[in-house]
Amino acid sequence: MREVIIVTDLDKIKILAEPTRFKILELLRKQPMSISELSTFLKKDRSTVYRHIKVLEKAGFVEKIGHERNEKIYARTARLFLLKVEPDESIEEFRRQYLRVEASRLLEILKKSGIKVKDEKEFLQLTAQVLKEIEDSSRPFLQKISQADLDLKEVELFHLLNLLVFLQSCELCEKAQKMKKLIDL
Amino acid sequence: MREVIIVTDLDKIKILAEPTRFKILELLRKQPMSISELSTFLKKDRSTVYRHIKVLEKAGFVEKIGHERNEKIYARTARLFLLKVEPDESIEEFRRQYLRVEASRLLEILKKSGIKVKDEKEFLQLTAQVLKEIEDSSRPFLQKISQADLDLKEVELFHLLNLLVFLQSCELCEKAQKMKKLIDL
Repeated sequence: MREVIIVTDLDKIKILAEPTRFKILELLRKQPMSISELSTFLKKDRSTVYRHIKVLEKAGFVEKIGHERNEKIYARTARLFLLKVEPDESIEEFRRQYLRVEASRLLEILKKSGIKVKDEKEFLQLTAQVLKEIEDSSRPFLQKISQADLDLKEVELFHLLNLLVFLQSCELCEKAQKMKKLIDL
Repeated sequence: MREVIIVTDLDKIKILAEPTRFKILELLRKQPMSISELSTFLKKDRSTVYRHIKVLEKAGFVEKIGHERNEKIYARTARLFLLKVEPDESIEEFRRQYLRVEASRLLEILKKSGIKVKDEKEFLQLTAQVLKEIEDSSRPFLQKISQADLDLKEVELFHLLNLLVFLQSCELCEKAQKMKKLIDL
């Protein structure tokens, strides 16, 4: 299993826009599983899970890594899939939803850490907007890196993404000032 | 095993500044191992490895997760340790070295992806400097989050760190312009 795979192919992202498949990948983060185990967790019948696993396998998101009691065991091909694709009408709703979820997770983290956010609604809007902007400007860069098919480590990806945000500093400065007013640091 | 642990305690960081211990944690990223396995990989005798493992265990970096052939098996307590401490004379050299290594890894990634860097020496200097600056300004924030002892997911940490860089946009803008001139995007 790789640490990171950057996914830039639109057809592959569409495969993840299906909720059950997205859920399967989430479950496999914890440990590799068989179709039976997955179907128990998902409360779906085995043939449905099998069909989804085959789609995920073909797209390179999961792989067989062994057998247990006559059943194949499936694992993710990477711990982390970083999704970066050209904006496309057909996945716009999935993307918007994803950004909203990420923004509200960030809000939760801040609140649990005792960091006050003055206007939560505005924070969520601004955060989703900034995440989108960062994603859009980083895309050409990350596409080049994805094409080079390097065996990136997570720590390297952290620094790389930080570098990409940093490169957009001048463009983001105004929004950062707005954000600073919203967060009580 | 957790996904992320943020380490802000100076004494703990000092423990990692010892090269063999740092190497042990790197080896355990791949899989949990016994003292014998570690000593084979490290080409060090078992008693040395045992001593280091005990120090790492006490500081909460590794834990026993089982037995195999009469030997204890050790694993990391988190996939990712994010080190964030107050600058301190005693670890300054370790930190500088770490930032230099990270900067040169980034340079390697860009080059392998076919992204041209005009002045490599200047790139390395500027990158190490920016990484340090980002780290310094993010520290109070990350300390609060570390104290809350949340079970952070990697993806959440990605967004959180991006948010922290974004918050410093106005301060980083000038350096970003310099960097853009160095990289041929």
